[in-house]
Amino acid sequence: MSDRSHTAQSRSECPVATALDVLGDKWTLLVIRDLLDGRRRFSEFERSPEGIPTNILSDRLKKLTEAGLIEARPRGTTTRFDYVPTDAAVALRPTLLALAAWGNDHFADTWTPPATWLEQSAES
Amino acid sequence: MSDRSHTAQSRSECPVATALDVLGDKWTLLVIRDLLDGRRRFSEFERSPEGIPTNILSDRLKKLTEAGLIEARPRGTTTRFDYVPTDAAVALRPTLLALAAWGNDHFADTWTPPATWLEQSAES
Repeated sequence: MSDRSHTAQSRSECPVATALDVLGDKWTLLVIRDLLDGRRRFSEFERSPEGIPTNILSDRLKKLTEAGLIEARPRGTTTRFDYVPTDAAVALRPTLLALAAWGNDHFADTWTPPATWLEQSAES
Repeated sequence: MSDRSHTAQSRSECPVATALDVLGDKWTLLVIRDLLDGRRRFSEFERSPEGIPTNILSDRLKKLTEAGLIEARPRGTTTRFDYVPTDAAVALRPTLLALAAWGNDHFADTWTPPATWLEQSAES
């Protein structure tokens, strides 16, 4: 267990509710999906097929950095960043795989994740 | 796989994105949690510690019914309903357990689900 305390903003001490305080919206888990799929640059997240709006992508990358799920690393001498998943983000893989399995079982025409999907490790 | 097709509203053919089209907000998975924990009546969902606003609860129960995750059964001769999870809702248990495990690992002071949690079966 990390030292990141359950905060005053948390809705309850339920671990599901607390997780959803960070992850519970239409986009955040898709950004995590892309991080675990190896994307690192703002432009790479923008190219995802769901077409995340630029302002929402900026907001989610910032919030995930503040929540300790992303490490934003300056890229060389530019003002840009590489967004790298932390161990806490990589630990969401079982949740994403469970959601993907449920999506495959309950909606026709969704693609099955390839065997390599989500197998990328965190970078140190 | 059900015959519930991937719809025109879906953002992509990714199973995670499609699942989040139904589940991706702060409240929906908490309603599913309560359903799998045995709650059936509107007043029971209202009493959850997160304090879901009444109008949001009404909206989510309606949307989950339309999405095939809840069966709304009239209660006796009253105008009220029992909200019963369908097999599709029960199939979200692995996702909820994965989220709970992540919440426990990453946030201090969240409670650990009891062994019996989420073990209730769908009713026929």
